[in-house]
Amino acid sequence: MRTLVAGGIEVCFTNPGTSEMHMVAALDRTPRIRSVLGLFEGVVTGAADGYARMAGKPACTLLHLGPGLANGMANLHNARKAQVPIINIVGDHATYHLRHDGPLTSDVEGIARPMTRWLRTSRAASEIGRDTADAILAARTAPGQIATLVIAADAAWSPGGAVGAIPALPRPLLPATEMIERAVATLGSGTPTAILLAGDALFGRGLVAAGRVAAATGAKLLAPYPFTRIERGAGRASVERIPYVFEQAADLLKEFRHLILVGAQVPVTYFAHPDKKASPLAEGCEIHTLASPAEDCGGAVESLAEALSLGAAAATRAEPSERPAIPTGVVSGSGIAAAIGNLLPENAVVVDESMTSGRNLLTFTRGAAPHDLLANTGGSIGIAMPLAVGAAVACPDRRVLCLSADGSGMYTLQALWTMARAGLNITTVIFANREYAVLKREFASFGLGDPGPRARDLFEIDRPDLDWVSLAKGMGVPGTRAASIEEFAEALREGFTSEGPSLIEVRL
Amino acid sequence: MRTLVAGGIEVCFTNPGTSEMHMVAALDRTPRIRSVLGLFEGVVTGAADGYARMAGKPACTLLHLGPGLANGMANLHNARKAQVPIINIVGDHATYHLRHDGPLTSDVEGIARPMTRWLRTSRAASEIGRDTADAILAARTAPGQIATLVIAADAAWSPGGAVGAIPALPRPLLPATEMIERAVATLGSGTPTAILLAGDALFGRGLVAAGRVAAATGAKLLAPYPFTRIERGAGRASVERIPYVFEQAADLLKEFRHLILVGAQVPVTYFAHPDKKASPLAEGCEIHTLASPAEDCGGAVESLAEALSLGAAAATRAEPSERPAIPTGVVSGSGIAAAIGNLLPENAVVVDESMTSGRNLLTFTRGAAPHDLLANTGGSIGIAMPLAVGAAVACPDRRVLCLSADGSGMYTLQALWTMARAGLNITTVIFANREYAVLKREFASFGLGDPGPRARDLFEIDRPDLDWVSLAKGMGVPGTRAASIEEFAEALREGFTSEGPSLIEVRL
Repeated sequence: MRTLVAGGIEVCFTNPGTSEMHMVAALDRTPRIRSVLGLFEGVVTGAADGYARMAGKPACTLLHLGPGLANGMANLHNARKAQVPIINIVGDHATYHLRHDGPLTSDVEGIARPMTRWLRTSRAASEIGRDTADAILAARTAPGQIATLVIAADAAWSPGGAVGAIPALPRPLLPATEMIERAVATLGSGTPTAILLAGDALFGRGLVAAGRVAAATGAKLLAPYPFTRIERGAGRASVERIPYVFEQAADLLKEFRHLILVGAQVPVTYFAHPDKKASPLAEGCEIHTLASPAEDCGGAVESLAEALSLGAAAATRAEPSERPAIPTGVVSGSGIAAAIGNLLPENAVVVDESMTSGRNLLTFTRGAAPHDLLANTGGSIGIAMPLAVGAAVACPDRRVLCLSADGSGMYTLQALWTMARAGLNITTVIFANREYAVLKREFASFGLGDPGPRARDLFEIDRPDLDWVSLAKGMGVPGTRAASIEEFAEALREGFTSEGPSLIEVRL
Repeated sequence: MRTLVAGGIEVCFTNPGTSEMHMVAALDRTPRIRSVLGLFEGVVTGAADGYARMAGKPACTLLHLGPGLANGMANLHNARKAQVPIINIVGDHATYHLRHDGPLTSDVEGIARPMTRWLRTSRAASEIGRDTADAILAARTAPGQIATLVIAADAAWSPGGAVGAIPALPRPLLPATEMIERAVATLGSGTPTAILLAGDALFGRGLVAAGRVAAATGAKLLAPYPFTRIERGAGRASVERIPYVFEQAADLLKEFRHLILVGAQVPVTYFAHPDKKASPLAEGCEIHTLASPAEDCGGAVESLAEALSLGAAAATRAEPSERPAIPTGVVSGSGIAAAIGNLLPENAVVVDESMTSGRNLLTFTRGAAPHDLLANTGGSIGIAMPLAVGAAVACPDRRVLCLSADGSGMYTLQALWTMARAGLNITTVIFANREYAVLKREFASFGLGDPGPRARDLFEIDRPDLDWVSLAKGMGVPGTRAASIEEFAEALREGFTSEGPSLIEVRL
């Protein structure tokens, strides 16, 4: 624990068990680390992801053996794709107990391997400090990695531990001058060019510089559909997200002959389709990599602006302040989005996993009060509420708006309890369309015809309808159901101004 | 799907996604396979386990990529330890799409490996039928195994599939005559002997024969703490479960000089402890293996009875019918157990994950109406409600009683929705002590003193209290809170006689 403190770790998201009791006792004596309990490990790992995105540094998790780790893996998958730092600490049986193959024995390293970049097991007390320091270094190596340290119970309870020395963190390097020069040449070529930003090029100094580059060169700024964090709203550089739907993405990208990547991958569809290409880029579009994910992406865009002689006084392509009017009448996706765009408080953090129901959100919040937006990066549903927990823990002075589809929300609904326990200022909106709408669309897109009753039973999550107000109440979160935009706006205002969490169910 | 039908598979527990759309379309055209939707994959895999325990054959699951499989892994861990058959079918990206490393790309085989005995990926349509047949064979190989078949999306959507030939299932072998003779000699040695039963020696013909052996030889019949399925109640052979707590287990076992294993492992504690042995057996207790898990355990006990000349007319050591009286007053663990013992209907299936709160259950249901009891076999919490779903699907004519601790129940509470969707006759009792009581006890047992406020925050799941009646209502399950034993008994009677699921919260 002292090594973690020395490495700047301030928060531990956890659901511990018997094999972690000595670590819990150590946490108990370490007031500088705040422990946050999740009632399911998917909440724990998703919260660690949300924390890392907003704090810019890792939290640790403390997980119980193979099964506890396994429960957290889907959101570790998302975190891995988000390229954020997380330090998982996983208890294992005492080294000499493993040979009995007891009920809770499993291959902990094997479970961790697919979702972790750095992996080690401490088998003696003397190793734990050093291994923890190595885990911190691995996690904080750019762009941010998942590190998993398994600690044998007898290592945890034996004397002989020592605080590990925290090495200097390696700073990510700027790309070679040649890459900057090539980007300058591409931007000056007179052919339509887009810049696809990721990592820390989507917020802070990187985004500011990107706005200037766009204004000066006419390049379009893009973000991948699965982005980690974007700063947006009035006054922020205008960035367009590449749509999820292939045809829409292809339509957006069709004009560009050059694509400059800043920490981003070449855009590809989530899924292959027998009749579609993997990439929505225009035929012949040339790819230029300005910076790879492990390089200093924000700094790369700044260097590019500098090479273009764009100083602090240069014009930027910023979003004008423009709050949409709040419509009236029955709730709808666009009405909800407009109300959010109007009412979003200054400096909010918005977490978006509204899936098909929230596709209008970006349009209506373009000119809203400046805010951060966090998205699902790995496509494993059930991230929104855990991510909101982590963001709220990282940013106690900011309001968090959590937008979740009902199908996704059911995956990790236990997060509502943690919001209540920790008194987090999170307003959760559940878009209850009572179906996995994306699957109905995909079924049709594969030419499989109309789903019959047995297939519909797997796409529709009604019969019975989920009642999210009751679910929230069951976990101590006050909730309300909004049937009209007026009711929604009223509940949203209330959520943004009251203390602690709240939930609004919108039946679409 | 036709190969699955040919292999006797009748049920598919699932939460599919885009990469499984062609399999959903195939399910849609296969009325002989019943699909049951879970709103989280821990429900799906736990239900497949419960189904297998009661049906004596595998269901299949249909899971979405690596993350869907990962979400189901904790209950696959339990199923692996239960040695039940399950066939997981997991969709993966099209073979040619994997190289793009898209958001949902992961190492599906790597995720499956720690929890599966048989693992293969079908990469062409022509392979799927054969691979499915091999998966069925692997799953149904004694004692029951987990088989995972990954199917690439392009294999699923291409023509050229063929129904796989289902090979004859290998029958488990009886142990060698020598092992039977040794057991006869041990039982005749005049020294105190116990027989530790597992697998199918705990129900059906194996258990009947065990009762005769016990009556004739004076041997004690034992079950491991983590057992898969026991037939018990009035008229069934009397079997004692080895307690979870080391001292209690050691006390039960201290008199025995010989332990005969029938499909069971040598008893070991769940966790190592610096001051305790791994096994609660008496010093010098000799271990004899009558049958290994992969052998015909029920047949082995029958052969033993035969070798002892115990025919159908031989006396048995059966539990007398004895329904405890229902006490009155405030709810308590023993009062609840007595009411259950009194009211349990004939031929019920009881699923027990009541943890510390339900430790009296076995005593009070010893002479209750004959029933099956299913337990958590791998120690990964969150199995009870999913297991109950699977048992109810396997046994539509039987009542299912699901006993869950509140902490465990929160792991997979989404199962309540499936109970409502499928109209399953399951009565769920939530023992709400609002803490992970076992952790408080373990903290003390390690000599870590009184937990301070930060540790208590991780052991106590109050602040806010969970309201299970609201949680159940949110998923369409009628619930009630019982403050007195009279109220509990009334609610239990109602649950056992009404159609569909219900829930009773008991605050201890």
